[in-house]
Amino acid sequence: MLPCAETTQNVERGAFRDALSQEGLLIATGVAGVYGRSAAFEDTLLRVDQLVQRTGAIDHPDVMRFPPILPRMTFERSGFLKSFPHLVGTVHSFTGNEHAHRALLHAAEQGQDWSEAFAATDVVLTPAACYPVYPQLRGTLPPAGRLIDVMSYCFRHEPSDDVARMQMFRMHEHVKAGDVETVFDWRAVWLRRIDRFVDALGLDAGREAASDPFFGRGGKLLADSQRDQGLKTEVVVPLANTDQPTAIISLNYHQDHFGQLYDISAEDGSVAHTSCIGFGLERITLALYRRHGFDRHAWPAHVRKMLGF
Amino acid sequence: MLPCAETTQNVERGAFRDALSQEGLLIATGVAGVYGRSAAFEDTLLRVDQLVQRTGAIDHPDVMRFPPILPRMTFERSGFLKSFPHLVGTVHSFTGNEHAHRALLHAAEQGQDWSEAFAATDVVLTPAACYPVYPQLRGTLPPAGRLIDVMSYCFRHEPSDDVARMQMFRMHEHVKAGDVETVFDWRAVWLRRIDRFVDALGLDAGREAASDPFFGRGGKLLADSQRDQGLKTEVVVPLANTDQPTAIISLNYHQDHFGQLYDISAEDGSVAHTSCIGFGLERITLALYRRHGFDRHAWPAHVRKMLGF
Repeated sequence: MLPCAETTQNVERGAFRDALSQEGLLIATGVAGVYGRSAAFEDTLLRVDQLVQRTGAIDHPDVMRFPPILPRMTFERSGFLKSFPHLVGTVHSFTGNEHAHRALLHAAEQGQDWSEAFAATDVVLTPAACYPVYPQLRGTLPPAGRLIDVMSYCFRHEPSDDVARMQMFRMHEHVKAGDVETVFDWRAVWLRRIDRFVDALGLDAGREAASDPFFGRGGKLLADSQRDQGLKTEVVVPLANTDQPTAIISLNYHQDHFGQLYDISAEDGSVAHTSCIGFGLERITLALYRRHGFDRHAWPAHVRKMLGF
Repeated sequence: MLPCAETTQNVERGAFRDALSQEGLLIATGVAGVYGRSAAFEDTLLRVDQLVQRTGAIDHPDVMRFPPILPRMTFERSGFLKSFPHLVGTVHSFTGNEHAHRALLHAAEQGQDWSEAFAATDVVLTPAACYPVYPQLRGTLPPAGRLIDVMSYCFRHEPSDDVARMQMFRMHEHVKAGDVETVFDWRAVWLRRIDRFVDALGLDAGREAASDPFFGRGGKLLADSQRDQGLKTEVVVPLANTDQPTAIISLNYHQDHFGQLYDISAEDGSVAHTSCIGFGLERITLALYRRHGFDRHAWPAHVRKMLGF
């Protein structure tokens, strides 16, 4: 039997997800964590996206947009496979002849696994919007560093009943690269901005020192170290369940991890440090519906004004 | 040695792609057919997307938005694996333990194929924006049928130097389902609208009876039959090479193919017919840069007005 708290959480999670479906805001597809979005949900999300864009525009970032796939070479270099193998989605394709094709169709008709005929391609699904950016920063940065605005769908293989834990979701990020001081100053600015951002949306948010879901037994040590060093700060809100709030914004300091891996140097020749802030667009949108109700035209006037409707 | 015409085409293709990179409109990633988009390119594309949306809005479609993955069950039913196995991208993930993880990392470090540890998940990449829609139409349609507006990134495994043949690109579609007459009337309306749409963008477009790239030797027969029956009409423009124009819009009549597969009935109980029109957003955007030049502020006034800048 499940512990009581967990049972309650599951029921609560299911109830919020089912209510979103009944309201027509999300569309079930038969796979956990994969949903269609209604016109209203999508419009709200795009308005959140524009708000993130406007909030960050005063820093004049370079805007780049990548499709939700990443070259395998870039991915292999990133260290993601070491830390989070359980979340990765690789893309495979069929390169067989007509004979192999007939065998493939036969297997599919018999309800057997037909994927063995599929070999790995040169791409994997993007695990976070910032991954395609680092190879583009290779070389020596200008004195003020570089600042990039990216947004894309991301994939995480974690099928879940928790509607806030989707297999594909959009993340809008700012990525800063430069010397330690430049990156620290940039982080300090965003730590102040975050409070205004969540206040403007009327969300009851808290801030937490956090860690990533590292794989395996060694993962706990890595997570503890990350938390102790204050490398990850999350803005959390009550969402699919109230006992365990959900992160909607994450501010990450990578030290010189990506600078080393992708040969990025600060102007003084030292290895560049990097940091990113990521806004989970589906999660912020879900938090708005959770906080203010399913009828967005009844949301507080200041929230509607901020989102422009 | 390659035939002369093909060599010329390849050079021409490469030249347009390289020019787009030099202008900073597209960002190379090291994998053929996978590009980043600049702020200007992305903004132009989103304006094309909005123009498609506005053009179709007078029909009051139901708007749905899906992430670029499709449940494997939905995909298996679609017939895509039979006709286009070479274009499919399946998504695989790692479900091994720490021992398997160590072996995986060792293989990756040695530059070996580490993908064998990855098994098929419940999802595949969406091959066309309309595929997630059909299961949602299951049952009996209302008298006027149903009309759905969808847009998403799509995947096709066809790495190419032709910049118009990307591995991931966005497709905005309208999908109509109903009885034969309803679907025919809807197609006739769009066939008239298409001309105004491309004229408004100042594109030198032609219209062609076309066919899909069916797999294998039998594929040619299927393609000929599709063309002879007039099931696919494409709007084509000179793009990456002038000898072979590129499709930017495609109007497809599926007869009762999807109606049968996904149990969709017209109001009179007959199997529903379906049709879709797809706008290739990257291709239309590329066609605009090809036709009017890399500086979009020098584009004809009527084109800029249509796109709202």
